[in-house]
Amino acid sequence: MSAPLKVGIAGLGTVGAGVLRVLRDNADLIAARAGRPIVPVAVAARDRTRERGVPLTGLRWHDDPVALAADPDVDAVAELIGGAEGPARALVEASIGAGRPVVTANKALIAIHGAAIAAAAEARGVTLAFEAAVAGGIPVIKTLREGLAANRIGRIAGILNGTCNYILTVMREQGRGFDEVLADAQALGYAEADPSFDIDGVDAAHKLAILAALAFGRPVDFSALHVEGIRQVSAIDIAFARELGLRIKLLGIASRGPRGIEARVHPCMVPEASPIARVDGVFNAVVIEGDFVGRVMLEGRGAGAGPTASAVVADLIDIARDRRTPVWGAAASALEAAPSVPMAAHTGPYYLRLMVLDRPGVIADVTAILRDQGVSLESMLQRGRSPGEAVPVVLTTHETGEAAMQSALSRIAALPTVVEPPAMIRIEPG
Amino acid sequence: MSAPLKVGIAGLGTVGAGVLRVLRDNADLIAARAGRPIVPVAVAARDRTRERGVPLTGLRWHDDPVALAADPDVDAVAELIGGAEGPARALVEASIGAGRPVVTANKALIAIHGAAIAAAAEARGVTLAFEAAVAGGIPVIKTLREGLAANRIGRIAGILNGTCNYILTVMREQGRGFDEVLADAQALGYAEADPSFDIDGVDAAHKLAILAALAFGRPVDFSALHVEGIRQVSAIDIAFARELGLRIKLLGIASRGPRGIEARVHPCMVPEASPIARVDGVFNAVVIEGDFVGRVMLEGRGAGAGPTASAVVADLIDIARDRRTPVWGAAASALEAAPSVPMAAHTGPYYLRLMVLDRPGVIADVTAILRDQGVSLESMLQRGRSPGEAVPVVLTTHETGEAAMQSALSRIAALPTVVEPPAMIRIEPG
Repeated sequence: MSAPLKVGIAGLGTVGAGVLRVLRDNADLIAARAGRPIVPVAVAARDRTRERGVPLTGLRWHDDPVALAADPDVDAVAELIGGAEGPARALVEASIGAGRPVVTANKALIAIHGAAIAAAAEARGVTLAFEAAVAGGIPVIKTLREGLAANRIGRIAGILNGTCNYILTVMREQGRGFDEVLADAQALGYAEADPSFDIDGVDAAHKLAILAALAFGRPVDFSALHVEGIRQVSAIDIAFARELGLRIKLLGIASRGPRGIEARVHPCMVPEASPIARVDGVFNAVVIEGDFVGRVMLEGRGAGAGPTASAVVADLIDIARDRRTPVWGAAASALEAAPSVPMAAHTGPYYLRLMVLDRPGVIADVTAILRDQGVSLESMLQRGRSPGEAVPVVLTTHETGEAAMQSALSRIAALPTVVEPPAMIRIEPG
Repeated sequence: MSAPLKVGIAGLGTVGAGVLRVLRDNADLIAARAGRPIVPVAVAARDRTRERGVPLTGLRWHDDPVALAADPDVDAVAELIGGAEGPARALVEASIGAGRPVVTANKALIAIHGAAIAAAAEARGVTLAFEAAVAGGIPVIKTLREGLAANRIGRIAGILNGTCNYILTVMREQGRGFDEVLADAQALGYAEADPSFDIDGVDAAHKLAILAALAFGRPVDFSALHVEGIRQVSAIDIAFARELGLRIKLLGIASRGPRGIEARVHPCMVPEASPIARVDGVFNAVVIEGDFVGRVMLEGRGAGAGPTASAVVADLIDIARDRRTPVWGAAASALEAAPSVPMAAHTGPYYLRLMVLDRPGVIADVTAILRDQGVSLESMLQRGRSPGEAVPVVLTTHETGEAAMQSALSRIAALPTVVEPPAMIRIEPG
C-alpha cells in the first residue's frame, strides 16, 4: 500500500466533524478503496474549545484556514467552511495556488466564483472537486461527468433543496398554509431562522448553476439563472394541483434547446405519476435525460453531516487514486459556448388561478385577454357559485410563451373583477 | 489533444451497433470528455453481409473475435458478443493476456467467471470494465465503487430484470394471470421465445452477484446466490398484496449481517409507498444503503441498445482518461473474506396464501403448525365464505427464520384441508 494521503480539514461544523467521523469509522475500507490510507493531519477552525463530538487529538490546529494550504505536511485540503467569499474562497484559491488538490462542499462559492476558480485549477493542473456541493450524498456530479459522459444531455431537472421539498410535502399532506408549515419547519430545525436562502430558491439555484455547467459542458454562470422561490405557493393551488393529477415541487431545470441553454428554478406542477413527484420530505432527486441512456433518476438525502461527508470523502478517494476529470467535464479549450436563453423566451404549459368576483362576463374578459396574447387554453375549472363574492377560477394552457403569459397576467391583474394578483405556476413533464 | 483511443468491437448485434452509433453521433463531445477521440478501428462478427443500420466502412473486419485482442492497432477491446463461455470468454481472456483494456456488457461471463478474470486482469495491470453488465445505462457500478466509496454498504436491493418487472406491472395493472401476460410480452418482444433466463431469475441473479461483489468488496460468487423467479406469482397474490398496501417485485437483494453476506433473488412484497415499489414497466432501479449516505436510489432503463451503449462508452472514456479502479473496488489483497450466509439462515416477515376447504378447525390446524415452528403471526385474512369449497386464507408473519418457515410450509401442505401448495412470498422493506 502506498503512502497515506494527508488531509487538512478547514471548518469543523456539522460537515467537517462528519468528514472526520467517516475517515475514522471507515478508515479500513477507505484505505482499501483508495489504495492507501486517507488520514486527517491538520484542521482549521475558529474556536478551539467547542465540543464537536469527534476527537481532535494529534491533529495540527491552524487558526487561519489559509494556513492549511501552506502546511507542508498536507497533501489535499477539504474546505468545509461555507460562504461564497471570505476565508472559504481565500482557502480554495490558496490551495490551488499552492498546487494542492482541494475538495469543497461549498455550492455558493462554486456557483458564483466557480468559473474563475476552475480556470485557475486547470491552469495549475490541480484537482478541484465538489461532489458534496450538489444534492449531498447523491453522486450526481460523478454521474454527469463520468457515468453518463457518452450522452448529449438534453435536460436535467432536480429537487435540490430539502427544506422547500419538506415544506411543500407537509403543505400537501396536511392541507396547511405556507407560513404555518414554515414556522413548524423552523421549530424542528428543518428550516433556518432566516429561511430566505432556501425558500427563495437561492440554494437550489446555486446547485442548478453547477449542474447546468456539468450537463452542458460550459463554465458555471449563476447570473444566467431565473430564480423564484416557494413563498407564493398557496394551499389552494396545492389542492387544485391534486384535482388536475399534478403535484407542486420546487424544481431546478436546465435544458438545451435550439437557441441555447435555459436554466431556471421555480415552483412547478408535475404529473403525480412522474417519479420526481413521488420524492417527498427532505429528499433530493435529479432526473437526467441523455440522448442514448434516456431518463435516469437519482434520489437520496441532499443534506446532513453523513451524506455530505460521504461525498467529500468520495472526492478524496478519487484524489488518492489519482482519478482525474476536468472540472466542467472537458478541458476549457473543448467547452462549448452555448448561449443562455432568457426566461422571457421560455415556452411551456401554464397553470393560472384567479380570484374573481362571481359575476357574468368575467370569464369572457379573461379569455379575451388570453386570446389577444395568443394563449391557447387547455382547461378551465370553476368550482362552486357565490354570486357577488370572490371565487377561484383555474385555467391551464397549452404550450405558451413566457413573454405572452407575463403580458396576459398584467392585463388580467388589472381587471376590476380580479380581486387578487393571479397565481401562475409552470407545468413541467417531471 | 492526445492520440485517439482505438477501439475494437466484437459483436455487432443490437449493443455493438449501438456502441458504433454513440461513438459516431457523439464523437465531438466524447472526445472532449475523454480528452481524446475514441475511434472504432476494427470489428469482429460472424456475418459480413447482415445489415446493421450503421456504416462499417473503414473498419477492419475480423471473423474471429479473439483476433481483435491481437490486432496491433487496437488499444482497447469491447466484448459485446454475450454468453458465459465460447468466443466472449476467449476474447476477454485474450485481451487481458495481451495487456489490452477490455470493456464488456456480459453479465453472465462476469457473474460466473469474473473472479478468475478479474484476478488475471489485476495481475496483468489491465483494466476490466463492465458497467453495462448491470442495470444498463444506470451507472450503478461507478456509484458503488466510486461515488459511495466512503460508505460501508449494509444492503443493496434492485429491480434488475426489465422483463420480469414489465410482466409483474401488467399483471397488477390489468389483473391478469402470469401465462397470459408472458405470452403478450413475447409477442411484443419484451420477453424472449425461451423466457426462462429472465423469468426464472437467472439474469437478475447474474447482476446481483456482481453488485454484491462490488458492494461488499469480495470477488463475485454466483454459486452463493439463492434464486427464484416469478412463474409462481399469481394474480390472486397480487390482489392480496394490494389489500395489504404492498406490491410484488422481483428483487435482487444482498445484505450484510453479523454472520456474513446474504444474496438472493426472489419475488418480494414491498410497501407500495417505498420508492422501489413505484418503479414500473421495463425500468430498473437499485437502492443502495450506506452507513453515512443513507438510502440512495438510482432508476433508469436497464436494457436496450442506447442505455447499454451509453455504459460501454462511459467505460471507454474512463480508459481514455486512464481513470483506474480495481475491479471489486479494492485490490485483491485488501478484499475481505466475508462468508456467505445460506438462504436457510435468512430471517424476515413472510406472506402466506393457502387454499383451504372452508370447514371449521382448518385455521386452528394451520396456526398450530406455525406455533410449533415458532412462527409469530402478524395478520390473518379470510375473505368470503363458501362452506365445503376452497377459499383463500392469507397470513403474514413477524420476523421468522426461513428454515422454520420451510418446515411449516411442508407440514401445512400436507394437511388434508389444504388443497393447493401454499404460496409464500417474502416481505421486504423496499
